[in-house]
Parts: sequence; structure tokens; C-alpha cells
Amino acid sequence: MREITDNWEELYETEVSQKLRHFSREGRMYDCLFAQQLTRELLEELFTIADNLRKITKTKEGADHASSLLSDKRAMLYFVQPSTRTFLSFLNACHLLGIKTSEIRDTSTSSEVKGESSEDTVRTFSSYVDLIIMRHPTPGFVEKTAWLMNRTKRPVPVINAGSGKDQHPTQALLDVYTLHKSFDGEIDGKKIVMVGDLKRGRTVRSLSYLMKNYKNVSLAFVSPKEFKMEPDILGFLKKHSIPYVETADFMSVMPEADAIYMTRIQDEHDTSGESRKVDYSPFYFKKEHLKIIKPSCVIMHPLPRRDEIETAVDEDPRAIYWRQERNGMWVRAAMISYIFKTNEKIIECCISNVSKILYDT
Amino acid sequence: MREITDNWEELYETEVSQKLRHFSREGRMYDCLFAQQLTRELLEELFTIADNLRKITKTKEGADHASSLLSDKRAMLYFVQPSTRTFLSFLNACHLLGIKTSEIRDTSTSSEVKGESSEDTVRTFSSYVDLIIMRHPTPGFVEKTAWLMNRTKRPVPVINAGSGKDQHPTQALLDVYTLHKSFDGEIDGKKIVMVGDLKRGRTVRSLSYLMKNYKNVSLAFVSPKEFKMEPDILGFLKKHSIPYVETADFMSVMPEADAIYMTRIQDEHDTSGESRKVDYSPFYFKKEHLKIIKPSCVIMHPLPRRDEIETAVDEDPRAIYWRQERNGMWVRAAMISYIFKTNEKIIECCISNVSKILYDT
Amino acid sequence: MREITDNWEELYETEVSQKLRHFSREGRMYDCLFAQQLTRELLEELFTIADNLRKITKTKEGADHASSLLSDKRAMLYFVQPSTRTFLSFLNACHLLGIKTSEIRDTSTSSEVKGESSEDTVRTFSSYVDLIIMRHPTPGFVEKTAWLMNRTKRPVPVINAGSGKDQHPTQALLDVYTLHKSFDGEIDGKKIVMVGDLKRGRTVRSLSYLMKNYKNVSLAFVSPKEFKMEPDILGFLKKHSIPYVETADFMSVMPEADAIYMTRIQDEHDTSGESRKVDYSPFYFKKEHLKIIKPSCVIMHPLPRRDEIETAVDEDPRAIYWRQERNGMWVRAAMISYIFKTNEKIIECCISNVSKILYDT
Repeated sequence: MREITDNWEELYETEVSQKLRHFSREGRMYDCLFAQQLTRELLEELFTIADNLRKITKTKEGADHASSLLSDKRAMLYFVQPSTRTFLSFLNACHLLGIKTSEIRDTSTSSEVKGESSEDTVRTFSSYVDLIIMRHPTPGFVEKTAWLMNRTKRPVPVINAGSGKDQHPTQALLDVYTLHKSFDGEIDGKKIVMVGDLKRGRTVRSLSYLMKNYKNVSLAFVSPKEFKMEPDILGFLKKHSIPYVETADFMSVMPEADAIYMTRIQDEHDTSGESRKVDYSPFYFKKEHLKIIKPSCVIMHPLPRRDEIETAVDEDPRAIYWRQERNGMWVRAAMISYIFKTNEKIIECCISNVSKILYDT
Repeated sequence: MREITDNWEELYETEVSQKLRHFSREGRMYDCLFAQQLTRELLEELFTIADNLRKITKTKEGADHASSLLSDKRAMLYFVQPSTRTFLSFLNACHLLGIKTSEIRDTSTSSEVKGESSEDTVRTFSSYVDLIIMRHPTPGFVEKTAWLMNRTKRPVPVINAGSGKDQHPTQALLDVYTLHKSFDGEIDGKKIVMVGDLKRGRTVRSLSYLMKNYKNVSLAFVSPKEFKMEPDILGFLKKHSIPYVETADFMSVMPEADAIYMTRIQDEHDTSGESRKVDYSPFYFKKEHLKIIKPSCVIMHPLPRRDEIETAVDEDPRAIYWRQERNGMWVRAAMISYIFKTNEKIIECCISNVSKILYDT
Repeated sequence: MREITDNWEELYETEVSQKLRHFSREGRMYDCLFAQQLTRELLEELFTIADNLRKITKTKEGADHASSLLSDKRAMLYFVQPSTRTFLSFLNACHLLGIKTSEIRDTSTSSEVKGESSEDTVRTFSSYVDLIIMRHPTPGFVEKTAWLMNRTKRPVPVINAGSGKDQHPTQALLDVYTLHKSFDGEIDGKKIVMVGDLKRGRTVRSLSYLMKNYKNVSLAFVSPKEFKMEPDILGFLKKHSIPYVETADFMSVMPEADAIYMTRIQDEHDTSGESRKVDYSPFYFKKEHLKIIKPSCVIMHPLPRRDEIETAVDEDPRAIYWRQERNGMWVRAAMISYIFKTNEKIIECCISNVSKILYDT
């Protein structure tokens, strides 16, 4: 039997790498909670599933097959923090796989009777479903839910769709998937430029972290001095011998970049309006920059954007942020597929589809 | 390739008939935005689809067939203006056809991060779906969304479910469909009486407009003098030689009517409480009037009603406003079917169903 | 033809047993409105359906069969009173059976245009669906909806999911189903202890009432003197010769109990803070009590709980309140199945599944 620590506080304080086994079964990830769970091997597997899903759903027959894969499953999307983007992406990922969905989007409804603990509330809602996809403002709450579920007689897997400021593993996943797609599967050896508010941007931090999975990647961090990448990530990169430069001169790193990852200023984390004092305009990508970058360079953004990327840039084929967003749906569907171990059925269908195409033409 | 004007303002100012081609593909309507798109030919086609859908869904087998037609599609219902009636009607139309749905019903959630343009927001949401059904308070916003979508590499069709005060084409469609059903397909030659606040009622204006598709129809406009039909519609009728009379004497036109279209006073458009100054009671349909009208006359109302129609009238078979409302679901399902070109599959199924019935009995 | 009284007020004042026939068809319950409709025969039938549904949905094939049973149906969940628990349970019951769902959860959206009567609103929404599941704060409103629907040309069945303080029949149903499951179908002869705020708890009142369906059941009511069971229920028990005791000494009745039904204090019904004056702690079930009760005794709670049951009790196999909650989904699915007469198809599938298992092994 799996050993689950009885003491939540103790587990929570444990270093992430040490507690991953509490959230896996039979050597596979069971709950998706941390970016640290995304090893290269798992990433490759998820990308293959996502690619296959895209492939088979190009025909109606394939799409109907995909939506039969998990047609016996019910998921709860528990999103008590506003997030339409991630919410819709997960919802449609469920729809792709035929999963039926229930939504909780408002704490006022869910805590209807005062005095029920939030643990009881979540356990209640889990009674009716086979999967919980959860976004919560409190750091650790999603992890605690997974821990609690694993202690019950009827555990259901939990996917973290954003938990406080700390973890949002499927966002990191979709970013790496987008790099993977853009480089035909070859992230090794690429130069990636990250631009903007690197200090407070969760996405650039996770993406930097995940680069440890690839060989000979080099990074450039472009930011105003007030919002430089934090020392913990820089230390991590040094430890893993991942070369990086820091600069405030965006133009200087553009010509060599294989990917430029733009971010907006995270002023929702301001404590005293510090964002307003910073001139962010040197960290904008403008139409004129399209002439400077490589023909193969891709421009990414986790969205929503403000003025960091001129809308005129959208029409350039190298602007892939809309595709990046759409990738989120596919790779989340892949994650859910993986958790329910349906991936092999997708591949089988793919093979039979391809042979059908071969024979029919 | 289709030519899409680059300048939105210019396109928006263009006369409707001149811009329809920007919203069609291969000679078919692609986005449903304007009542002006509803030609007689298209109306007849949509009515046939709606009739066939009703027919096949009478059996479970037929209903299951209907809900397999678009089972590979996902729709977004973007309704940021309250409208439960139209919303539910579209939602269930999607369900009929097996389309999976996502809902955006609250701008506060969707514009969660301030600073994102509404164009970006809509484009984001469209990433995950194959169809956008949109209701928006800003005139032209739905049209602009369709225009924007058509400029992207991954356009999805857009259906207008009510855009400002100007356009609500599927409401007009369901009204004409109800006439069509009531008259066994023969709208030509009928006398239609429209009653109430004709000045500010969007439905009576659109319905009058669509009468140009039929032969020898005559209209009577019954209203208080404050809320008479606007000159633009009267001019349009004259231009197309559609005879009409205007009167405040409801009783005088009742005996000849083939259809009586009742409307409520549109006091939400009052600027200084002008509705309260008008005696609306002569424009009520009462139980006693049932004796005056033709045995074949139908009583319609776009609903919701207040006191314009006594509830005692509901039980008369000529009171068809509840059926009219239900028609909305069917004809919207037909519209979606048409857009995705699945109509032929419905007809096939109908034929095979009919032959099955013939052989089985 | 069924006779439906024309006068709502008159019908509403009629004693429940006298009006049941207005809500049945062909000798079967058509609308589920009152606990009084739950005869022993009907209960047994619903329990069999629920058991069969659980059995067949253990395999993907069975689950897919279950969700094909009512795949041609559309339901509206009209929950204008907050209730996530009951809502999710019904929603997932619909999903289990393949029913497509629409939700109305907010009166402000539904009564968007002032002046529409709530009867018209409900009739509107019913236009698009085949089933209404309704929770409403106004006593009698759900019943009135069913009465109105039955008078239209297109009636749809109505299920009461909680109507004012008076009726919540599916809660009573799930409680009896839980007893049935816990006692292997033998509720006859059992000793059931109900604990807490018995005066104002709707669940204990309904459960007591339904005990009339079983033989030789005896009850113990444990409560503070301020919240004793009301005389109407006590009178009912005397009339049906169901023995009961009343006590404030919880410990004294624990050792003999076959089931202990815990409830929380219903302080939302306080008129002047009377709950705060009562010492509720003698009516808590604590970990130490696990030693006192029978090895076969079950501990139930309608949830949500506060402090009435220590969380340490949750891990004891006799604590079945989480299973009780999950039972709600199954037995509600059974109720919907029954109303649409699909129960026989479930049983057939069950039989063929069982024979498949027999032959395959």
C-alpha cells in the first residue's frame, strides 16, 4: 500500500522532490501538482499524446473516438479564483475527451452553510466525480486537497490549475509544449530570451526551471533593473550549468534568439504602486523588430497582453501566442488522458487512422 | 481567397447589403449577423432543416442521430448581456445537435486582468471552440468579432444572438418560422396585424422588414400615436409595394387578421418616463376578443409579456406564443446545422426514418 | 383523461394523500413532489434501480450504456436558492444517464425583464427541456409549477429538490436508501437514533415519517429540551404504532443503536439567537463513542456538519456519511430513470453484463 504521511503540516514543509511519491501510483504521476513533476520523459509522453489527439480529431470519426475515451468520467472544475482563460481551456479539454463537467466558480455558493470546513466541502463535491481540477488563491490548498483525497477510501486525482502564487504546472507545460512544436521537437541547444517583469512572473520562473530537462539551452533575461529574475532561479541555473545573461538591452539579444518570451508587468502584485515608476517601453516588442529577429524565431506570450506586443505583430507567422494559448487545451487534454491511462488508445486510433488513409487513397 | 477589408470603421459604415459577402463563404452565409441575410431561399432551407430536426427527434434513435451530427464541435456562448430566454434556446439547440458548450455570462470574469482589449479576450476564448454565439450590448460588437475572426488563420463562425438595439436576426427568424408553421408554409397573401409599441420594438421592425420575402402580404400597425412604426420601415414597405394601414383602433382590424403579433411596451428605452403617460390598455388582447378573430387566426408574442395578453387566452388553440418560443430552439438548431453544412445528413436520416416506418407497419 | 383541478388554491389546501393522483399518470408517480409519494413498493423499486445503476457503471461499457439511456433528454436545473450539494448531486445524476442540462441559478438573470410572472418564466424555460428539477425558497412553488405544467399541452415532469421548509423528498429518499444499503436491505426491526435539533431539522422529520413503511422499527429521539421532535410527528408515530423514546442522554441509547443519525443545529431558523443559549455539546458524536456503539452500527449525517461529529471519527468504517452523500447521486439518478421508465433497460443490461462475466471467466 502507498504510504501517506498523517501529518499535513509536516508533508507541506517537506522539499518538493521528497514528497512527489505521495502523489504518484504505480510509478506514475497520479495528482498533477508541481512543475517539478514534469520530467523530460513525462514531457515527451505528454507531447506525444497531445500531438496524437490533435491528429485524430482532425476527422469527425477521430474526434468522436477521442470523446469516447473518457465518456464514463465526470470532472469537477473547482475554480474559486477568477480565471476564464485556464478555466475554458480545461473545460474544453474535458469536452474533447468526453468527460462530463460540473463547475464551482463561486465560494459564496459553495460555503453556503457557514461552519462547514473547506476540507469537508471539497470532499463533498468530490463524491460525485472522478477528477478534480482546482484553482485556489491559497498556496498549498490544492496540494492539501490531493493529500486529503488520497487518505479517503475513494480518492480521485487532483490537477492543479493554479494555486496561489507558487504553482501552475500546466501553464509551464503548455509553454514547453509550444517550444517543442515550434522547434520540431528539438528544444536542445536553443537560445531563449525572456522579457519583462521577470521578478514576479510565475510563467518565466517555471519555464526557466523546466529548461533543466534540455541540453545546451541558453537563456537571456531582459528586464528593467527593478524586476530582474530572482536569485533562487539564477542559483538553480548555475547549479545545472545552464548559461544565462542578464541585460536591460532588448535589441542586443534579439538577433540571436530562437524564442522570445514576452510578459506583461505584473502590477497586481504591487504593494505601493512601484510599477508606475518603471519605464516598461524598452521591453515592448514592436513591428519594426520583426526585421531584426531570425526568420525561424518565435514570439510567445502567456497572455493576456497589454502593450508589450503591438497588435500589428499578430499577423507575422512568427507570432505564435494565439497558437500557444490553444496548445494549452491540447496539452491539458493530454495530461488528463495520461492520468486516466487512456493514452495508448489514442495512439492505436492514430495508427489505424493513418493506415485507413493509406488504403483509402 | 476571400477579400476582407482591412479597415473596420470603413466596413462598419458600409451599407448592409454591400458587406454581406464579407461574411459568407462559397456562396453560403458563414456568419449570421443581420436579418438582411435571411433571403426567402435561405428561410425556406432553414425551415426545412428545422422541420426535419423536429421530425427525426420524435424517436430516441432520431434524437441520438441528431446529437451525433455535430458531436465533434464545441461552441462558446458569450452572453455578457442578461438574456436567459435566448441563452437557453441556443444552449438547448446546441445540445440537440451534440455540440459541447462553454458559457461566458459575466464580463467581470472575462476581463479579469484589466488592460486586455476585448478583441484579445474574444480571440482567446475562440481558441478553444468551433463556433461563437454572442450577445453583446454594444452595437456592432458582434459584427466586429466576426470580422476579426475572419482575418485570423483559424476563423470560427459567429452567430449574432442580439447586438445592441440594432440586430437580433434569429428572433426575426423564429417569428417568420412560426408564421410559416401556422400557415402550412403559405405566408404569401396573409394579413398580419402588429400591435403595441411599434416604435421601439425590435421584433416588429425586423418582422416587417422580412415580409419583403413574401407575396401579397398586407400589414396593419396598431399602436398608440406615441409609439407608431418609424418612417424608415414605412418607407421600406412603400418601396417594396407592401400595403399597410396604421390605426389606433385594434378592434377594427381584428376580424380580418391571419396573425396578430402582440408586443409589450418597451419602457426600458424610456428617457423620461414617457411610457407611463400612455394608456396602453386599448392594445391588450383579452379573452373576449377570441370571439371576434378568425378561427384560423394565430396570436403571437415574442415574450416576456405583461398584461398585453390575458392569461385566460393561453388555453385557446390559436394562442401560439408558447409554441413560438419553442420554435426558437428548433430554428436556431437549424441555423447552426446550416452553418456547419450538416443539413443534408438530417434529411437523409429523415428519409430513412420514414421508409423504416413504411416498411415496419 | 387525467383530471386536474382548475383551482390552484383549492388544490394546494387539499391534504397531500388526496392530491397525489394529480401528479401521477398510468398509476405511476409522474412528478416527484412529496415524501408521501415514497411508498415501500416505490422505495424498493428505486433502490433496485440505484443498485443496478451502480453495478453496471463499474465497467466503461456499462457506464456508456447508462449514459445512452436518456441521451435524447434535456433537463433544466432551476435552483434559485443556493444549494451546491443537492445541485451537484442532481447534475451528476443527469450526466450518469446522458441527460443534457441547463442551469438557472440566479433569479436576477431569469426575471431579467420586470413584469413577467414567475409562472410565465418557468413555462418559458420548460419549453426547451424534458424535465424540470427545481429548488425554490417559496413553499408550494415547486408543486404549483408541476400543476401548471400538467395543464399545458406539453407537460414535463417536475422533481422537487427542496421547496421552502416543507418538502425535500429526495433527501428523505437518500437517507432511507443509505439505511437499506447498510442493513443489506433489512430495515425492518432496526433501532434508529436521531440526534440533535429535531425540532427544526427537515431530514429527521421526513425520515421518521418514512419509517411507517417498515416493520418493527423503533426510534430514539435525542435532543436538548429546546429542540425536541414536534408533536405532529410523535402523533403520527403513535397512530402507526411505531415505538419511540425521547431523551437528552445520548450515551444511554448508543449501545443498542443500529443507526445513529446526527444533525447539526439549524440556527439559520433562529428568530432571536435561541441556538446560542443551548449547550449542544452533549449531542456530539466523539471518537471515544466508537467503543460504545455496536460493531454493526452506522453513523449518518445529512451534511454539512460542524462539530457534531469529530473528524477523527471519519476513518472508522461505521462512519458512512460520505457514502450517504454519494448515495444521493445514485438514488436521484434512479428517480429520474423511474420517471422516464428506463429502469427495465438498466436491469436488462445488468443481466447481460452478469452473464457476460459468468461466460468470460
